[in-house]
Amino acid sequence: MSLADKILSGDIRAAARLMRDIDDGVASAVEELKLIYPHTGHAYVIGITGPPGAGKSTLVDQLTAGYRAQNKRVGVVAIDPTSPFTGGAILGDRIRMNRHADDEGVFIRSLATRGHLGGLSRSTADVVNVLDALGMDVIIIETVGVGQDEVEIVSTAHTTIVVMVPGLGDDIQAIKAGILEIGDLFVVNKADRDGADRTSRELSTMLEMNRYQAGEWRPQVLMVEAQRNRGIDELLQGIARHRHHMEESGELRHFVEEKRARHFLELLKERLFMEVSNHIQVNGRFRSIMAGLTSGETNPYTAVESVLSERLRRD
Amino acid sequence: MSLADKILSGDIRAAARLMRDIDDGVASAVEELKLIYPHTGHAYVIGITGPPGAGKSTLVDQLTAGYRAQNKRVGVVAIDPTSPFTGGAILGDRIRMNRHADDEGVFIRSLATRGHLGGLSRSTADVVNVLDALGMDVIIIETVGVGQDEVEIVSTAHTTIVVMVPGLGDDIQAIKAGILEIGDLFVVNKADRDGADRTSRELSTMLEMNRYQAGEWRPQVLMVEAQRNRGIDELLQGIARHRHHMEESGELRHFVEEKRARHFLELLKERLFMEVSNHIQVNGRFRSIMAGLTSGETNPYTAVESVLSERLRRD
Repeated sequence: MSLADKILSGDIRAAARLMRDIDDGVASAVEELKLIYPHTGHAYVIGITGPPGAGKSTLVDQLTAGYRAQNKRVGVVAIDPTSPFTGGAILGDRIRMNRHADDEGVFIRSLATRGHLGGLSRSTADVVNVLDALGMDVIIIETVGVGQDEVEIVSTAHTTIVVMVPGLGDDIQAIKAGILEIGDLFVVNKADRDGADRTSRELSTMLEMNRYQAGEWRPQVLMVEAQRNRGIDELLQGIARHRHHMEESGELRHFVEEKRARHFLELLKERLFMEVSNHIQVNGRFRSIMAGLTSGETNPYTAVESVLSERLRRD
Repeated sequence: MSLADKILSGDIRAAARLMRDIDDGVASAVEELKLIYPHTGHAYVIGITGPPGAGKSTLVDQLTAGYRAQNKRVGVVAIDPTSPFTGGAILGDRIRMNRHADDEGVFIRSLATRGHLGGLSRSTADVVNVLDALGMDVIIIETVGVGQDEVEIVSTAHTTIVVMVPGLGDDIQAIKAGILEIGDLFVVNKADRDGADRTSRELSTMLEMNRYQAGEWRPQVLMVEAQRNRGIDELLQGIARHRHHMEESGELRHFVEEKRARHFLELLKERLFMEVSNHIQVNGRFRSIMAGLTSGETNPYTAVESVLSERLRRD
């Protein structure tokens, strides 16, 4: 029985194994991914993002509990900043959601951001596919950070939740303007803190400045205290409303098609580069280019052009 | 007279023009970059990173003033999170360092993170090369965020400064563990705030847990109040000490070689992908693959393999 077959029959250990193989770049992982691919596309994917310290992990924990109460199976993919030194995840699974540890209906996976240069969003898509094939009803992707990484990862999600928190600095206010455009729902977490109402009002005001087309989704701002489980039901309802909108308007189908194209192109980019860079390292071309760059005989732009003209068949 | 010649003779407007051309993907920009490449490698590059709200921009402003007082020409590259909607930079040049606006010895450039998937670090390297060829003595790269982006961009810098600030949340503490390994100097900014001493002590304790080889650089923690210009001289001295160490130990030469290799490989990756993805879009292959993915006839992994085997000459 292949790993793929086991995963499709709900074998959690087989899923964990395939995810490890994906991480480690084991060649057979691709064959398994091919087998599960036709059985994906059933899970609803929720992305959660926001600045560090906004309480995203606690929120994910509460949402997980909420979906479990609805008898839904939940997969969680937590994107952790990687230690550039050890290559390991910094936050790690250990500190996450211990209370769901014995629940077979919850599968938690930390993904370290060591897959540089676009590799991360591709492997996120792969991991989401494994969880989807495993039969998870809801998959939550959580990202720390405010960079481009998170925008790309969240673009995998059907519903994106941006978590803000009162009382962060001016940079945050500026970033908010950018994050405004990716959120379907906005959560002001730690809503008991000073300034929560102001943060909520500011967000609402900024959102109201957008012109919405008839029938277009209007993002909502919700006050939550994740730590005390306040506002979680309203958030679950908000997600359900957005999902309903996505399904009814046809946006979901369009989104899934775009996601598919992106996944393919990212995979293509990674594999192309791997093939060609391996090739020039094995045949000594890379070493001679490096020598030429050091001596000043060539420059990186000319060197790339010569490699491209040698390697790509012009047809 | 080519743009490159003008830049090499110190023409600021020509430099600004070439940077715009790089951003816009104008084909001739690559030819100009080839011409300036042999004249680069003279500037000292300083990377500044840290979480949002740490006061990085103010710090960069003060360092710029400090180097100007030493009669050094300063280039600043500020990496801004991009609005995914408008494609424009969110913070923008406008709010940056107005007091240096009329100083010909300062060149400030905001770089938006719209160059997805590795494009950003490559274009940062290109912009640094333009500033270098323009005759800047010091180039400061400032990044907002805590993701992988910043780690890669900072890897362009000879000296990396990590800016922390007292009183941020637990996530930050965890991230600190990862950021610990990329900093040559650590700044506790807003050192007048409560908890500054604790933050400084924690950082020092964590750094002391590292085992340093004889002759290895030992990162230092400095207390700064950028807003009041306190501690800036000490920071300038710290940078000078690290630079001296890098030059004397031979680490600088090694670092420059690695940077050169990385720049070449990133350029290769971008250009390879551009060539191949353009090709399959023009010849209709992309459309047929997308149809196959939608119908379930193929999967992205198999589709990528077939494109690779068609496009790459096996020699």
